[in-house]
Amino acid sequence: MAEPDLAPIIAAIAEEMKAAPDRGTVASYIPGLARIDPARFGIAVVTASGEAFTAGDAEMSFSIQSVSKVFALTLALGKIGDALWRRVGREPSGTAFNSIVQLEAERGIPRNPFINAGAIVVCDVNLSRARPVEAVAELLRFVRYLAEDETIGIDRMVASSEAETGFRNVALANFMRAYGNILHAPEEALWLYFNQCAIAMSCTQLAMSGRYLMASGRHPSGASVVSPGRARRINALMMMCGHYDASGDFAFRIGLPGKSGVGGGILAIAPGKASIAVWSPGLNAQGNSQLGTLALERLATRTGWSIFEGS
Amino acid sequence: MAEPDLAPIIAAIAEEMKAAPDRGTVASYIPGLARIDPARFGIAVVTASGEAFTAGDAEMSFSIQSVSKVFALTLALGKIGDALWRRVGREPSGTAFNSIVQLEAERGIPRNPFINAGAIVVCDVNLSRARPVEAVAELLRFVRYLAEDETIGIDRMVASSEAETGFRNVALANFMRAYGNILHAPEEALWLYFNQCAIAMSCTQLAMSGRYLMASGRHPSGASVVSPGRARRINALMMMCGHYDASGDFAFRIGLPGKSGVGGGILAIAPGKASIAVWSPGLNAQGNSQLGTLALERLATRTGWSIFEGS
Amino acid sequence: MAEPDLAPIIAAIAEEMKAAPDRGTVASYIPGLARIDPARFGIAVVTASGEAFTAGDAEMSFSIQSVSKVFALTLALGKIGDALWRRVGREPSGTAFNSIVQLEAERGIPRNPFINAGAIVVCDVNLSRARPVEAVAELLRFVRYLAEDETIGIDRMVASSEAETGFRNVALANFMRAYGNILHAPEEALWLYFNQCAIAMSCTQLAMSGRYLMASGRHPSGASVVSPGRARRINALMMMCGHYDASGDFAFRIGLPGKSGVGGGILAIAPGKASIAVWSPGLNAQGNSQLGTLALERLATRTGWSIFEGS
Amino acid sequence: MAEPDLAPIIAAIAEEMKAAPDRGTVASYIPGLARIDPARFGIAVVTASGEAFTAGDAEMSFSIQSVSKVFALTLALGKIGDALWRRVGREPSGTAFNSIVQLEAERGIPRNPFINAGAIVVCDVNLSRARPVEAVAELLRFVRYLAEDETIGIDRMVASSEAETGFRNVALANFMRAYGNILHAPEEALWLYFNQCAIAMSCTQLAMSGRYLMASGRHPSGASVVSPGRARRINALMMMCGHYDASGDFAFRIGLPGKSGVGGGILAIAPGKASIAVWSPGLNAQGNSQLGTLALERLATRTGWSIFEGS
Repeated sequence: MAEPDLAPIIAAIAEEMKAAPDRGTVASYIPGLARIDPARFGIAVVTASGEAFTAGDAEMSFSIQSVSKVFALTLALGKIGDALWRRVGREPSGTAFNSIVQLEAERGIPRNPFINAGAIVVCDVNLSRARPVEAVAELLRFVRYLAEDETIGIDRMVASSEAETGFRNVALANFMRAYGNILHAPEEALWLYFNQCAIAMSCTQLAMSGRYLMASGRHPSGASVVSPGRARRINALMMMCGHYDASGDFAFRIGLPGKSGVGGGILAIAPGKASIAVWSPGLNAQGNSQLGTLALERLATRTGWSIFEGS
Repeated sequence: MAEPDLAPIIAAIAEEMKAAPDRGTVASYIPGLARIDPARFGIAVVTASGEAFTAGDAEMSFSIQSVSKVFALTLALGKIGDALWRRVGREPSGTAFNSIVQLEAERGIPRNPFINAGAIVVCDVNLSRARPVEAVAELLRFVRYLAEDETIGIDRMVASSEAETGFRNVALANFMRAYGNILHAPEEALWLYFNQCAIAMSCTQLAMSGRYLMASGRHPSGASVVSPGRARRINALMMMCGHYDASGDFAFRIGLPGKSGVGGGILAIAPGKASIAVWSPGLNAQGNSQLGTLALERLATRTGWSIFEGS
Repeated sequence: MAEPDLAPIIAAIAEEMKAAPDRGTVASYIPGLARIDPARFGIAVVTASGEAFTAGDAEMSFSIQSVSKVFALTLALGKIGDALWRRVGREPSGTAFNSIVQLEAERGIPRNPFINAGAIVVCDVNLSRARPVEAVAELLRFVRYLAEDETIGIDRMVASSEAETGFRNVALANFMRAYGNILHAPEEALWLYFNQCAIAMSCTQLAMSGRYLMASGRHPSGASVVSPGRARRINALMMMCGHYDASGDFAFRIGLPGKSGVGGGILAIAPGKASIAVWSPGLNAQGNSQLGTLALERLATRTGWSIFEGS
Repeated sequence: MAEPDLAPIIAAIAEEMKAAPDRGTVASYIPGLARIDPARFGIAVVTASGEAFTAGDAEMSFSIQSVSKVFALTLALGKIGDALWRRVGREPSGTAFNSIVQLEAERGIPRNPFINAGAIVVCDVNLSRARPVEAVAELLRFVRYLAEDETIGIDRMVASSEAETGFRNVALANFMRAYGNILHAPEEALWLYFNQCAIAMSCTQLAMSGRYLMASGRHPSGASVVSPGRARRINALMMMCGHYDASGDFAFRIGLPGKSGVGGGILAIAPGKASIAVWSPGLNAQGNSQLGTLALERLATRTGWSIFEGS
């Protein structure tokens, strides 16, 4: 397939999204998310050749929430490598993002690093030899390096709200601690987790951060962020588990590895071709951005970027 | 990445598999499978340009078992299209291939068409306006057309043994009938299911049958078997659900859509590049071919065919 | 507490039931049950001294359904004694009467003999050395002997309807067969099960049949039906498991061992004092007779017969 | 049945327990429990007429643990009455004492007040209008009043150890808080819970405390602790749910309402006849006292006190 002409494709999608009748429901469990305007939609695409295309509210900052789990996982694999897989699985969960049932059946080992329980274990790993505040700083430095943008920060109000209302995550952390799969104090792993979820980025910043995953692990500077094999495997994990219990549907409709967040952002990777970020705060029934998913479906169709495509 | 030189790669893999210390355990629940020699290993690769490469026992016939679910699904989608998705889900199950727990929680709707319950619903669809014996004949005609090989048949002894010992599948079919998700007599859907599982093919025949999935749905004759979009979506389903509760692991290690069977066969698709069949009867703990999986892992690494690869 | 004056108590309860506003919902899954008049209510109490008190439609015959599980269990314990408990548990299930989830988690061993799966295992035991038709005849002889009434029979139309619509029970039987916990052909155990459920009795006949359970296992003739210890333990099982997932509520409100059936009948035992049968076809949300339960609650209160009573 | 001659029966049972070969396994999750001598065995029986019979280590103090849930429930019912049942169920759980699976399926409503989650809700109720330290004091006053013994206290070391290791209970409390079924700060309800479990009593003190449950709710002073109906219903709850997932077995073998604790104590009630406490620290596979259960089985047989007995 010939190179797609991205500028008009992306402009058209952004235009179509303005008219979309069903915009989903904005997450309301914390004030910092609930007050976001559901009319917002942004998209940013950075290609392998380094070109960036954006449309809509692509420069508006939003709470990346669970999209942060991709960067945290990358850091944790850098720290302990495949030893991580003794503490977290690599299989889709078949249940909701914050289910505790599976944890009991499988004795404290979360199914994958992208459900909440798995991400809390990843935080526990990232706490090794660091105080929580240092671990947050390290993650922030890593994301800024990936995006080549020193302005990325944390929305403190969101982080505080998460901590005040995150009883279910407290339950998950303590439950795993009871099985010995959290090594630090549960509240330390949770503090890191709540701060990590509160990282605020724009679509452009997020798409820039994801470039190493389309580029066999390489940073634009030429440095290796992760090995090609690890980049490939992180993409595989995003494909299999990146959208909770709607991962199958995302693969079916879009055919790209991706990771969504309850703030309405999605990072998607077309390996070798593009790093893509979309954002629209209204969520569908599975907790993924309603318009973000629709926009990616149209982008994948019009570019032919699906990894299941035969050409 | 340059075109891989397949002949030596495949020969080397077949040679390496001869020396593999852990060959897994041959399925023993029916005599027709139990008596197979665990030393067997075959591989066949058919490329987009139509070349075929084989090694080992690539011409030896084996019971394709659950690999048949891919062809049955393709037929059913041809009959009723997306209406199928009202009766079967598209998500990984998070449980074993023959679990009944999920069916109760989700009121008789199987999670996907590749777990046993889902495949029995697909059989029920393929029974529409046909007696079971005609439905089996139609499926056989379809597979022979895909492989361009009229010699493909059914191992009657395997089919009979399945019917005699398949109490759990009888349970699944009756359970879904109780929820109204099997429309024919359960024993008719099961008869079709047991016969479909007993289709016998060689690696070469299986790789030939899978060509439409690498080629945007086109038969080598130029005819369209399915639309490009449908081929892409069947590949996505194989990626997400093709290896039961080890689908995540298969994606992580190999990075290709694939479907395994308890007879030790696996069909894998490198979209736009190749249709691949491997066979070795010893199974790993998840019920997938031990050496088949290992061979595919090496093939994917040496060819760079992983769909998560950035180049 | 002084002997209660039963005649006026029972007459008053029957009168009150006539005026009850919420009569529940008649089971409709088979025509033989669906056509019953919801206005019906009967009660029969047989005391330790042999006196019988009845009111309402106490002589009208109804389908005893799951109440038959008590008599079938008594027979099976007579055949193989405590060996039964290697194949069936003795714990409340915590789930609905026909759930299959627990069976998978506990590998084909039903939680107790009063959920459907457990009763099907009991049928399998009662098939030992007998053809299904003989096993049905044996159970019928046993119930007639207990009630001293040769007119008790089976409603063939109900039995046939059960067989035609009982897909879920077929699933349960085949599922347990897959685990090796059904030894005969599943359809034979099911045939016995469907016929046993279709036994038709009046309240008077049912109360007469239950006398051995209030009388330390003795038949009015003086013969021993079961040992005192076994009578006690069957009562314990009825208390713990006799009302499916509403057993706790029945114990809380009524405080007597009892077994309900979907036909609207309940057999309750006041050990040493009375054998009680009530019948009203409307069911509550848990599948137990709405008015039958209410009538027993008032009877227990007015007689002081609760086994949790301190006097 | 004639009045049993209790003194020799109890002495004989205590003697037999000395020789019992299988004494179970002492709970080891906190030091305060792990260091108890498994050779200990005590029994105390207080009859309706006020006589007390004891044998073995009946005056030795032990951690009553979950037996305290009976007294806490009694207090909570006094505070909010049947409104409690909107927040806690009354059904056996069908799962282990600290399972979290059921809580997710039933949206934060524990199955009954005797599993850990249910007892934590009861603590939350007992916190109404009181600080945790006051709520603990109130419970202690209540138990001392029931036992007529001002020396009953709390083992502070046990309470601290529970708090340090009780991650699973922390998980349960936070999980229910997420569903809105814990109204206070989870750590306050837990602090009360851990202290309540650490109440230390002897068999004699425990049997004295349970007298109101055999005596239709009356204190020996003649005062009403609870109404007769409530006493009856608490007994029913102990019968149905008092031994976690071995409640059915306890009913089957012993036939008395009872509540066990992981410290090896069991309180059992023969309504109208006796309040019984046994203690032996070794536990069986279900977490109930091995010798305590055996001793109660023999006591029930020799006294004929089973509530399922027909005479």
